[in-house]
Amino acid sequence: MGKANISNPVIRRLPRYYRFLGELKSKGFTRISSGELSRRMGLTASQVRQDFNCFGEFGQQGYGYNVDILQSEIGAILGLNKMHKAVLIGVGNLGRAVAQHINFNLFGFQIIGYFEQKESLIGQMIKNTPIRNIRDLDEFCRENKPEVAVLCIPKEGAKVISEQLVRLGIKGFWNFSHYDISLNYPEVQVENVHINDSLMTLSYKLNNLDK
Amino acid sequence: MGKANISNPVIRRLPRYYRFLGELKSKGFTRISSGELSRRMGLTASQVRQDFNCFGEFGQQGYGYNVDILQSEIGAILGLNKMHKAVLIGVGNLGRAVAQHINFNLFGFQIIGYFEQKESLIGQMIKNTPIRNIRDLDEFCRENKPEVAVLCIPKEGAKVISEQLVRLGIKGFWNFSHYDISLNYPEVQVENVHINDSLMTLSYKLNNLDK
Repeated sequence: MGKANISNPVIRRLPRYYRFLGELKSKGFTRISSGELSRRMGLTASQVRQDFNCFGEFGQQGYGYNVDILQSEIGAILGLNKMHKAVLIGVGNLGRAVAQHINFNLFGFQIIGYFEQKESLIGQMIKNTPIRNIRDLDEFCRENKPEVAVLCIPKEGAKVISEQLVRLGIKGFWNFSHYDISLNYPEVQVENVHINDSLMTLSYKLNNLDK
Repeated sequence: MGKANISNPVIRRLPRYYRFLGELKSKGFTRISSGELSRRMGLTASQVRQDFNCFGEFGQQGYGYNVDILQSEIGAILGLNKMHKAVLIGVGNLGRAVAQHINFNLFGFQIIGYFEQKESLIGQMIKNTPIRNIRDLDEFCRENKPEVAVLCIPKEGAKVISEQLVRLGIKGFWNFSHYDISLNYPEVQVENVHINDSLMTLSYKLNNLDK
């Protein structure tokens, strides 16, 4: 499947396709037309067909898509079948929730270490993996070579830690801090999580209900 | 300011503008051109100007925008200056992290009650507000009339609870469960949080590094 020149909006839609197809699968669907899929996702049918054309042929005209195969292929394009070793930095409330709530393995990531500076948390276990002292980060990364860091620390500490992590070979960040990593390390892949944006959108919707 | 027919993509960008302008403000910027703002946000200058034109005149040609005023005006469009009473349902790891990590007040929401079914959590305090028994939800809502619910429970329980909440007058959901509320209540405003989508995007980026 050709992957050249996939535009950013198409890439952004891939996880949604993957998610919707998973839901269809769990509801017992085996085939779906681009029309039906687009209706459920709030897109147009031609949009869906265009998106899938970026990656080659997923279905037959007039026959619809095989839900299971389509989901697997999109999963493969997303790289979910390849495992990346990751460390999670900061296991306060947010870090702990992320660690326990997110099923990293389903998305191609394996958390091999948790790191924290707060003494009282060090040594505790999360999903059978110990929380380590942040001072041991260098040694751990040199030995275990994680490629990804999940950053769950406040903005203040993020500059120093991201510098250290990039130096230790981290190639991708899942960034919950409000520090802009990309600004200093354009070569590193960063996904920022801005949960507040959706809260603001909800506020907008509520305030424009009767207009 | 005219708000008619604002398209969904424009609405989606408003929180980003708000956030970026806040960061500029904290860095000491007082004025910014559409060119500079667009560069920082990865948009084109004409895109930025078009977006702002939807809401009327924010700046003067060639003179740039006043950062502080622009942020306030976008905040007002987002309705962040109006407070909505909200309840948060489910204070497991995720709910607790959301409750403690998100500064709801900044975004126009006031959490007036936390609800949980797990006996051991009931009576504990979060930010000076007690965690209540989910069985008291009806009575609480009738008395206090919240408009919004933050749903932090697993998919399984979400159908029954969302039905109950809509019946109790809830008009908007910030939905962390993987249950599709909109399907049954199209009249209710729902913002779904799909954190996994950004994790999949990171996987895609990492797997297409060298291509």
